[in-house]
Amino acid sequence: MHSLFKTIALVGRLNTPSLGDPIRRLAALLEACDVKVLIEGKIAQEHEINAFQRVERDHIGKLADLVIVLGGDGTMLSVARLLAPYRIPLMGINQGRLGFMTDIPLHEMEKSVPNILAGQFVPEERILLEASVLREGKTINTSLAFNDVVFSRGSIGSMIEFEIFVDSQFVYSQRSDGLVVSTPTGSTAYALASGGPILHPSLPAITLVPICPQSLSNRPIVVSENAQVEFLLTRGQDARVYFDNQSDFELQEMDKVLIRRYTNSLRILHPHGYSYYDMLRAKLRWGEKLL
Amino acid sequence: MHSLFKTIALVGRLNTPSLGDPIRRLAALLEACDVKVLIEGKIAQEHEINAFQRVERDHIGKLADLVIVLGGDGTMLSVARLLAPYRIPLMGINQGRLGFMTDIPLHEMEKSVPNILAGQFVPEERILLEASVLREGKTINTSLAFNDVVFSRGSIGSMIEFEIFVDSQFVYSQRSDGLVVSTPTGSTAYALASGGPILHPSLPAITLVPICPQSLSNRPIVVSENAQVEFLLTRGQDARVYFDNQSDFELQEMDKVLIRRYTNSLRILHPHGYSYYDMLRAKLRWGEKLL
Amino acid sequence: MHSLFKTIALVGRLNTPSLGDPIRRLAALLEACDVKVLIEGKIAQEHEINAFQRVERDHIGKLADLVIVLGGDGTMLSVARLLAPYRIPLMGINQGRLGFMTDIPLHEMEKSVPNILAGQFVPEERILLEASVLREGKTINTSLAFNDVVFSRGSIGSMIEFEIFVDSQFVYSQRSDGLVVSTPTGSTAYALASGGPILHPSLPAITLVPICPQSLSNRPIVVSENAQVEFLLTRGQDARVYFDNQSDFELQEMDKVLIRRYTNSLRILHPHGYSYYDMLRAKLRWGEKLL
Amino acid sequence: MHSLFKTIALVGRLNTPSLGDPIRRLAALLEACDVKVLIEGKIAQEHEINAFQRVERDHIGKLADLVIVLGGDGTMLSVARLLAPYRIPLMGINQGRLGFMTDIPLHEMEKSVPNILAGQFVPEERILLEASVLREGKTINTSLAFNDVVFSRGSIGSMIEFEIFVDSQFVYSQRSDGLVVSTPTGSTAYALASGGPILHPSLPAITLVPICPQSLSNRPIVVSENAQVEFLLTRGQDARVYFDNQSDFELQEMDKVLIRRYTNSLRILHPHGYSYYDMLRAKLRWGEKLL
Repeated sequence: MHSLFKTIALVGRLNTPSLGDPIRRLAALLEACDVKVLIEGKIAQEHEINAFQRVERDHIGKLADLVIVLGGDGTMLSVARLLAPYRIPLMGINQGRLGFMTDIPLHEMEKSVPNILAGQFVPEERILLEASVLREGKTINTSLAFNDVVFSRGSIGSMIEFEIFVDSQFVYSQRSDGLVVSTPTGSTAYALASGGPILHPSLPAITLVPICPQSLSNRPIVVSENAQVEFLLTRGQDARVYFDNQSDFELQEMDKVLIRRYTNSLRILHPHGYSYYDMLRAKLRWGEKLL
Repeated sequence: MHSLFKTIALVGRLNTPSLGDPIRRLAALLEACDVKVLIEGKIAQEHEINAFQRVERDHIGKLADLVIVLGGDGTMLSVARLLAPYRIPLMGINQGRLGFMTDIPLHEMEKSVPNILAGQFVPEERILLEASVLREGKTINTSLAFNDVVFSRGSIGSMIEFEIFVDSQFVYSQRSDGLVVSTPTGSTAYALASGGPILHPSLPAITLVPICPQSLSNRPIVVSENAQVEFLLTRGQDARVYFDNQSDFELQEMDKVLIRRYTNSLRILHPHGYSYYDMLRAKLRWGEKLL
Repeated sequence: MHSLFKTIALVGRLNTPSLGDPIRRLAALLEACDVKVLIEGKIAQEHEINAFQRVERDHIGKLADLVIVLGGDGTMLSVARLLAPYRIPLMGINQGRLGFMTDIPLHEMEKSVPNILAGQFVPEERILLEASVLREGKTINTSLAFNDVVFSRGSIGSMIEFEIFVDSQFVYSQRSDGLVVSTPTGSTAYALASGGPILHPSLPAITLVPICPQSLSNRPIVVSENAQVEFLLTRGQDARVYFDNQSDFELQEMDKVLIRRYTNSLRILHPHGYSYYDMLRAKLRWGEKLL
Repeated sequence: MHSLFKTIALVGRLNTPSLGDPIRRLAALLEACDVKVLIEGKIAQEHEINAFQRVERDHIGKLADLVIVLGGDGTMLSVARLLAPYRIPLMGINQGRLGFMTDIPLHEMEKSVPNILAGQFVPEERILLEASVLREGKTINTSLAFNDVVFSRGSIGSMIEFEIFVDSQFVYSQRSDGLVVSTPTGSTAYALASGGPILHPSLPAITLVPICPQSLSNRPIVVSENAQVEFLLTRGQDARVYFDNQSDFELQEMDKVLIRRYTNSLRILHPHGYSYYDMLRAKLRWGEKLL
């Protein structure tokens, strides 16, 4: 079979013994399709897979033209942030529970992967956010987020106070536990738990969802993906900003955080017949009548 | 002064004695700017204004190149649905309370209107929805909505059951009091009371907000303005669909309602310095600390 | 076996062919326990059960000392309103889906019922509401509700406006789709869909839950079961009040509705080992991790 | 004038220069009513008030038979927790913004206080919570809370996982940012921001409000004030429990926290004509039509 992708890197969830066998099977299957297989170093080491070239996480972007993730949405998230600069597509195989992004079940891997290599897939472009922390006018941190940039109070227990500007226009001051600034991808994660709406992945939008705001009239707001969102911490001794809940940065009063859409988007490949709504319905149990 | 607009129609809230004087003042002001002034027939009659040409509501679209509305958001709404086919801009003067759309206070009319005629304004394009009711495959009603298309149970008191499809993909079946399908403009109206998010007017989006859904995992969802939303009534003896809550249509089981973006958008002119967020903050009292 | 209950009436969901066999089996089982069996007339007729004494619904209260309901929560509700004046306990057998009140599955009937007759049960007292509609000072309707008294706009589509007083103290004026006044029993029904809290059945409380209120700071409020709640319709051409969504009454502007706890409470018998929280968890799928 | 209270202690918000004058005026007014006046030591020192007997905070309970608080709800809260063991009533004078508990405005102090001394007041009993932290079966901390006991994740950013039992019955396991266990008094504080209902102060109830729960079907629940609530931390490296957000305690996995109603309740004296709903309406702006 002829594969559209020449070099494919395999990445998996760490500390997951049950992944050893599927990774071997997948690597063999890809090799049989004349694909050059790279295996992420740590996962190769964990499962003692030596028959394929190992590659460091940081080099995947330069070497592969497709990355297959075995694991859950968390693994997908960490890979997404890493690959975003390289415009390489991703696909996700879940090893148990259906994920919002990892939508191929392990037991359908042998059937789905060859179809995808042959071009039978539904591509979906997803945006990322780029956040810069400014202290006294200087950028002291820049991070990417595929799900969300979350501002949150720490363990002191007091609410934080901040001001939000969109495209340099003042939106509101707020006293709350924090704020979620989310992509459509992140709209089904922490933003949803905080009361935010679900944004279809194709929507060119960012949503701002307050976390337990003191003012009862505060509501989630959805703005254009081209909007520049500015967060200014006016009060809070213990505030932090989190990127996809995978890295974080401690904020000081009067720190600014600028958030805008990252230049590149990320392409996720779904199996033929994929429907975003089918996945939502399965994950959120819509259509079930609970009462 | 030279006006960008040659023929301006004035429309006002009916049964509002206090509007007589401002309409006269506004008409005189426009005439002094060499503008041809048309006054909507019913309002001219109500206030016995005879010095200017009267025009029927239905003809405004063909004759005017700007419409000024005096009243509240309700009046604006009814004019918007009427003018949408003609691509004529609208501006709104509120006669008391600030409106979401009628953002020029009466006492600033003399200052703001000449500036707008001179081209000093912030234009904002807003989408409308077009809804078609299909019974046994035939279109039996077509209506426009500037705020929202609302499906709702009637007075029998039982919830209704329906299925939603977006771009022919099944989204969910739902048992609830109804559903709000809203434009960004309508996102601050009934959709907000039902728990929906606020959509910035520039966002090319439509939101679907369930009304008291029985399933506790239902959430508002935001889709592209290019999406075609299909509502199928599967159960409900007393269901209706409302367009901007200004007209409505009784539905039968198995009726379909197709909703898509209307071809034209509507241009609203705001005074120089206008900020959507300032208006939101004033209307929703954001930034105030209630507790 | 000696039964604590001498005369037991059987009531079932109508138009449900599958109930014929279980009712016969249950009646035989009760007879074998030396219980006098009454069968509600319509259900006896539907299933052509002639071996037992038939009884009209309205006479059950005077004749039976326990009522067993086969069906769902809806059937339970209609029986509860009927029996409330007679202080006769109720138990519920569900014929499929677990109910909030009908908590014995059909397939455990043969095991559970004898235990209950022998005194092995968990009794639970539940309050009802009594609502009186006053027009120009005269009571024109009085109804009981086991779940809720719901005020609601009709099919005209406009919100209604009303004032609420508790124990003659003004609480708020509200513009909304309506208001749910709910017992703890009703707190898991429509009140929950409207955003209300869950009240444990033992809580001596009534909750007031606004339905899509226009003011964003409105919240559900919980008051004592001894509180007298007064609803005054100030605006609404098409408002109605619903009792358990099983009967309703059309309201005119300036009608008052007084709601207070009904004198009697209703005793529900649950099987040994019953836990309210187990039932909630099963119905609402708590403890499941959806995301 | 004859005062019902013989010894009154004055407590005030610290670091508030503008309180010096009102405290002096109040002390003089009380002395003129033949009341023995005690002034809390720190506040006496801050404002250099030497004409009255100073008293340490911890001794107020043993010496006074009424405590008057000048400040806001925060000051009231800290005094309440201190006085609860002594059954001494409290009244609150706010120095600016109306509080939920401090309901006498400064400018009405001279009029209201003498009336209250003369017995013209509306007393309100409010419950407190007592929380015990158990580690490996041993109680390692016991604290009182007048508003709430809050379980919360710390700054690591991951949700915590816990199980809740009420009266030894399993209620749910939950993954969330935390949980608010609140008295009726606290129901208008953090519990309200987290989506909880308002409980009338006279309601013998405790409410459990999840904070951003991952499961979308989680809802606030209200149980009897006699219920024993048990929290078991099953997962969370950085969880804490907060008491009225004034003290806190770091939790380890498998720590249990038992919460029950504290033996004593606290009596708050309100001025004649006081209505809880008037206060709510003023604080939450109910009755205002925002849209």
